[in-house]
Amino acid sequence: MARASLRENIIEAAVDRFHSHGYAATGVKDITDAAGAPKGSFYNHFESKEALAVVALERYGASRRLDMLTDDSVAPLARVRRHFEFLRDENLEAGFARGCMVGDMAVEVADHSEALRAGVFESFTYWREALAAAILDAQEAGEVSKAQDAATLAAFVLNAWEGTLIATRTDRSAKPFESFFTIVFGVVLR
Amino acid sequence: MARASLRENIIEAAVDRFHSHGYAATGVKDITDAAGAPKGSFYNHFESKEALAVVALERYGASRRLDMLTDDSVAPLARVRRHFEFLRDENLEAGFARGCMVGDMAVEVADHSEALRAGVFESFTYWREALAAAILDAQEAGEVSKAQDAATLAAFVLNAWEGTLIATRTDRSAKPFESFFTIVFGVVLR
Repeated sequence: MARASLRENIIEAAVDRFHSHGYAATGVKDITDAAGAPKGSFYNHFESKEALAVVALERYGASRRLDMLTDDSVAPLARVRRHFEFLRDENLEAGFARGCMVGDMAVEVADHSEALRAGVFESFTYWREALAAAILDAQEAGEVSKAQDAATLAAFVLNAWEGTLIATRTDRSAKPFESFFTIVFGVVLR
Repeated sequence: MARASLRENIIEAAVDRFHSHGYAATGVKDITDAAGAPKGSFYNHFESKEALAVVALERYGASRRLDMLTDDSVAPLARVRRHFEFLRDENLEAGFARGCMVGDMAVEVADHSEALRAGVFESFTYWREALAAAILDAQEAGEVSKAQDAATLAAFVLNAWEGTLIATRTDRSAKPFESFFTIVFGVVLR
């Protein structure tokens, strides 16, 4: 199945290039070159760079380990903490050079491509709902106050995380992660 | 002083285009066209698009009304709230179509241009310090608990704000602002 494998290579190259260089700065030829595919073959697999980006967003989302948020073998608040520790460690390993691909796409193209805006919206919604469910479990378990709605807390924490990734790239330091963990687990989810 | 005015037109056009379309998607010709300037005149005023973007960042920063954070005629916590209300209202007026230009630049180019990364870093640092000073005043006035460091709270709130702007663009809704104000002023700054 040479065709299926070529398509797969193109998707993997797209995730890598969009994540490291951004959407506008990545051309179809950059992607096919990185995938070791002839440029002409691209349109056998994808209608456009935009259509490929929607698939790349899904692929990236699947690597976010949202399953950690629903792992019943771990106490709810610890699940939330370990999930963000996983995301933090991945970022540290990349030397602060990569943010969240979903957030990056939102900034770069959500205003200009309805298909990509919808893809970003779906990714964030799925993540926010998984986070809200874990926070609700933590509230039911008495680990987190019920004074605020779990959905509101989840939306806020997710947004704080996205902003934290912006700061780590700018500062090239892990300090924004420290602020995030200190305030989220010391103040917000109490 | 036709020259000074042309330079000024170019800066204003650059702030507008970078803010609405992003850095990579905006060419020098887009800017000179919007400024009503001949493309050839650009390099009389700026060495590069990158050099212009550094000036545009400063110009944008000056419009963020950081003076609201140091206005002693208003109680410290109310200053912080009004500052973010000002930024929120500006965003609502633009129909969610524009984020924070500093955050956008961070996402798009902080990894690829040291000059722009430094400009973004300076803008965020200046803002974070003004916010930390207002939060410290609020702590001294007994409006906010001293359990957490003002600098850590300020960094966290600023990052939460930047992430909130990502969410408003994606959702095309004011709901992320509601989560921000509910949790920041109901939980974080208490």
